[in-house]
Amino acid sequence: MNEFDVIRKLSGLLPPAPPEVLVPIGDDCAVLRLGGGTWAAASDMLVSGRHFKGWADPADVGYKAVAVNVSDVAAMGGTPRFILVSGAAPDPETALGVFEGVAEACGEFGVYPLGGDTTGADALTVDVAILGEIEGVPVLRSGARPGDLLAVTGELGASAAGLLALEEGREGFERLKARHLRPRPRVGTGRAAARLGVGAMIDLSDGLASDVRHVCERSEVGCRVDLDALPVSEDARRLAASLGRDPGVLAATGGEDYELLVSAPEHVLDALAETAGLPVTVVGEVTGAGIDFRRGGDVVEELSGWDHFS
Amino acid sequence: MNEFDVIRKLSGLLPPAPPEVLVPIGDDCAVLRLGGGTWAAASDMLVSGRHFKGWADPADVGYKAVAVNVSDVAAMGGTPRFILVSGAAPDPETALGVFEGVAEACGEFGVYPLGGDTTGADALTVDVAILGEIEGVPVLRSGARPGDLLAVTGELGASAAGLLALEEGREGFERLKARHLRPRPRVGTGRAAARLGVGAMIDLSDGLASDVRHVCERSEVGCRVDLDALPVSEDARRLAASLGRDPGVLAATGGEDYELLVSAPEHVLDALAETAGLPVTVVGEVTGAGIDFRRGGDVVEELSGWDHFS
Repeated sequence: MNEFDVIRKLSGLLPPAPPEVLVPIGDDCAVLRLGGGTWAAASDMLVSGRHFKGWADPADVGYKAVAVNVSDVAAMGGTPRFILVSGAAPDPETALGVFEGVAEACGEFGVYPLGGDTTGADALTVDVAILGEIEGVPVLRSGARPGDLLAVTGELGASAAGLLALEEGREGFERLKARHLRPRPRVGTGRAAARLGVGAMIDLSDGLASDVRHVCERSEVGCRVDLDALPVSEDARRLAASLGRDPGVLAATGGEDYELLVSAPEHVLDALAETAGLPVTVVGEVTGAGIDFRRGGDVVEELSGWDHFS
Repeated sequence: MNEFDVIRKLSGLLPPAPPEVLVPIGDDCAVLRLGGGTWAAASDMLVSGRHFKGWADPADVGYKAVAVNVSDVAAMGGTPRFILVSGAAPDPETALGVFEGVAEACGEFGVYPLGGDTTGADALTVDVAILGEIEGVPVLRSGARPGDLLAVTGELGASAAGLLALEEGREGFERLKARHLRPRPRVGTGRAAARLGVGAMIDLSDGLASDVRHVCERSEVGCRVDLDALPVSEDARRLAASLGRDPGVLAATGGEDYELLVSAPEHVLDALAETAGLPVTVVGEVTGAGIDFRRGGDVVEELSGWDHFS
């Protein structure tokens, strides 16, 4: 049994959704209609030894736990508003460090901490639950249509490159390390994309090769992605090369960039690029069926058949 | 530094509360005004080795993680509505077991699961965040007034007795074990207490000796509690006696009963007892200052001075 089987078995256990539920489990956030407002809700957990190691200090972990949840709200086109934070830490000093990072992220993203829980544990574990406000209609994973272009914000592979630099104990590469430790969710760009009416949106947490598959499955479409088109920065390329890694593959599979992947017609992407204040790069297009990663004219098999759960 | 110091330092890091926040951190739940409605929000985390051991199966852990959050909403006089669940488990089978318990609790308490996160970890860890709906005004910890009586719902010490039976590997005592593994939050009674206008309310998670202190601190009052008045069941007394434990002390300090402690004038408690469908037992009264646990006429020093954080 893998994570996918667990999710499939679980969906059989779900009770009927109450009328407030506009979007149930299965997207970046669930969406609720409460009073006159529309609210996105999600949670994400970071565990020591799985999501980070000794190279992350407790404040980094607290900051990132907030940021990755903010990114889920950004991917619906929402504004992050409130969080709950549960932290399990081996000692009170570590817990305090986590909450200092949480508070810093709250200030940066305009999020208010409503409370949570603190407990002891051998492994530092931080779970954040978030409520975000959506003006208008949430952008779902299911809205991609054949003929749409696929575009990503910012850059890909920087976080994975930063992680490699941290894991290998490389000097320098501070920008890449910071991209991994303190990701910068694209809240303003997500809201702009929603206003402009993009078809589908998802945040790039697992990596493009996996996340584009989520969009295609929910939208019942396929896609063609050009590895050479992925926006990879010069320092990320340099680090990848020094470790014998293919920068395009790193950018497609590394994950944790917390950029946005959007599908939309070209004129919508042009309008988004004008307002975004960061690069919006076309990386492929939506097709009728099949996930097709290419480099030039050649199919890259290991990505086209890539399985996140294996 | 202890948990109390952490919380004190953290309150200095809080940004100003947005206008939606009616009750910030520091009560059983935070309370938000969203659209036309009033919503309670809280989260609680359970960690293997701290909150449970091998005697709890994954479904018990999932069930309890929901129940303890439902209890927080009950303590505000609210109705539990939506949860997010983040689970870290050593293998997918354990994760599935947790979510089966979560689904069972959702059915039992009328709560809808909006989603969450699943990840790997050495120690099973489950965090639940909850949204509850409040009709009318939330009941806070800060509303106790000198002259009010203090009463508890149901029974105390059963969960602690059940935990002892589980830890000691005792045969039998199934009712007590179930009280520990699958607590029964008092949602209907909490709502009735809110409608009847009780002064203060808290759920008994840490144990009466600690939780009554939270009420007194927030209300800036004291209390007198009679250990002999605590409602302790015959089987809990029998188990305590067999282990040489004082049943009154066990009931006051054991914790995890998830009953409600309310402060109110006598006629309000009488009305509550009529509608509650379970015992509502007067255990003491609110005074001007000082925490005073007594047995007959004698002060019980170790409880009157009891410090949850030491």
